Amino acid sequence: MTSELAETSSVPVGVGIAVVSSFINGSTFVLQKKGILRARKRGGSYLTDCVWWSGTVSMIVGQIGNFLAYNAAPAALVTPLGALGVLFGALLASWVLQERLTTLGKLGCVLCCVGSVVLIIHAPKLDNVSSRAELETRLRDPLLFAYIFMVLLILAVLITWVAPLHGSSNIMVYVSICSLLGTFTVPSSKGLGLVAPEAFAGGSPNSGTHALFLGLLGTLAVSVLLQFTFINKALESFSPSMFEAIYYVAFTTSVILASAVIFKEWTALGAVDCLGMLCGLAVVSVGVFLLRMPQETPFDWKPTKVPENV
Amino acid sequence: MTSELAETSSVPVGVGIAVVSSFINGSTFVLQKKGILRARKRGGSYLTDCVWWSGTVSMIVGQIGNFLAYNAAPAALVTPLGALGVLFGALLASWVLQERLTTLGKLGCVLCCVGSVVLIIHAPKLDNVSSRAELETRLRDPLLFAYIFMVLLILAVLITWVAPLHGSSNIMVYVSICSLLGTFTVPSSKGLGLVAPEAFAGGSPNSGTHALFLGLLGTLAVSVLLQFTFINKALESFSPSMFEAIYYVAFTTSVILASAVIFKEWTALGAVDCLGMLCGLAVVSVGVFLLRMPQETPFDWKPTKVPENV
Repeated sequence: MTSELAETSSVPVGVGIAVVSSFINGSTFVLQKKGILRARKRGGSYLTDCVWWSGTVSMIVGQIGNFLAYNAAPAALVTPLGALGVLFGALLASWVLQERLTTLGKLGCVLCCVGSVVLIIHAPKLDNVSSRAELETRLRDPLLFAYIFMVLLILAVLITWVAPLHGSSNIMVYVSICSLLGTFTVPSSKGLGLVAPEAFAGGSPNSGTHALFLGLLGTLAVSVLLQFTFINKALESFSPSMFEAIYYVAFTTSVILASAVIFKEWTALGAVDCLGMLCGLAVVSVGVFLLRMPQETPFDWKPTKVPENV
Repeated sequence: MTSELAETSSVPVGVGIAVVSSFINGSTFVLQKKGILRARKRGGSYLTDCVWWSGTVSMIVGQIGNFLAYNAAPAALVTPLGALGVLFGALLASWVLQERLTTLGKLGCVLCCVGSVVLIIHAPKLDNVSSRAELETRLRDPLLFAYIFMVLLILAVLITWVAPLHGSSNIMVYVSICSLLGTFTVPSSKGLGLVAPEAFAGGSPNSGTHALFLGLLGTLAVSVLLQFTFINKALESFSPSMFEAIYYVAFTTSVILASAVIFKEWTALGAVDCLGMLCGLAVVSVGVFLLRMPQETPFDWKPTKVPENV
């Protein structure tokens, strides 16, 4: 089939876009911080600083890149590759902001790269859902409904009951909420990419396609807004780097699970590649943890001599 | 060919033996230390303690297991799997000796396991040299002579000139010597396994086979003794855990390089599997580093609340 052939070749393009947009996303925060520092030095507003604006523009470009990557490659591959953004952000911060990278941070960089390579080696070579018709078939699966219902139930309990009580004392509450919302943001973003070409094609205005398009857009908008709200709530109570590390692992796991149910991304994978993907994910997760560990830790490992009989 | 078929099935057996003997090797040090502590408590000699003896027996069993593993599977796979011994030793130490395993140590355990899986997934499925005749053909390769001559030259310079001057101040001197000696210990041990069945077969006493056998045995004896001497010299000057971590990485790299030249182990591997092997090696190396980092470091990462506007 031609669609399969076309899909086979779209995955490497998707991986390329995912890697580039991860790098762009990683530079966002560093460029904005540099702009704010420059503006403060001058005594002006950062809104007049070109470095701050380059950070803001790179944020928009990075998000567009992410959207394109999700449409060309499996979500189970694109999401973990976000670790390269954490890696690039740390390298850029040590270069532009002169933030010192510890030995642990350097090991974290190595793991992010190595784990990403393992992920790419073992990722599915085909996207299972690559057209609107396939997406509509998948959306009629009762298993998918059961999964979405379960996630919505857990989210409702977390948001209305657990978050007000324990949200500001237990980091896992906001992490869980934001990660579970990834069940909706990533697949609806991927779905929009499949439906959009037909919805805007003109010619035959199919009302079903338009309804699907609006439904996906609504889901994306609501879930992104909720995610944004709870990320900000979390950052009020916890250190950004700790939150980022735990959130990365939880979000990636949640998206991989969701896209396994919704897009059946893992069905084409053999047992060895599944194992390889899990290994790559574990390596990348440890890498992000090491990179995001408090950089002010006094610990820096250098081979030193031992004074006496050790 | 039947010999190829037989070799195909010997690799999984070799991997199994390598994993088991790594675990046994990892328990050696912990059991001996426990025995010494028990004996000290009783006020007797550790030579009368059964736990100390179980450690000593496990050391011998582990070395025999290693020897068997090298004969059934590629050295480039068996050597890095030694990381599982470091992992098991750390887990056993935290259980038997109540040594506290830090967060970093736990992450190191995860990486040792995950990296070993990646290595096993991508390892060569065939052993290129699986008979005495094949070994003799390989030993006539001029490239191999050039490589061995180069290693011997570097060793001579290191031992006679660099070690007396910088050995006790720079950890890399003894690490390099011991690792380069791996060029001889591992391949000669593997060669002995190939030649021994014919040398002891009786029937046709082939003088060439006997000479080869004695040559390999001599090489093994000299290189093991030198390795032993310099490891002990290193432990007089440096922390054992630091030495073990750096030594693991250097020794594994040196053995992989040597067995690539001597046994051409990597020729059957595609580019993807080579990349996968390198990734697995990198992951396992970072894991050993994290496990062997000073356990007394004050750093232990737990998600804590941030006091003000971070």
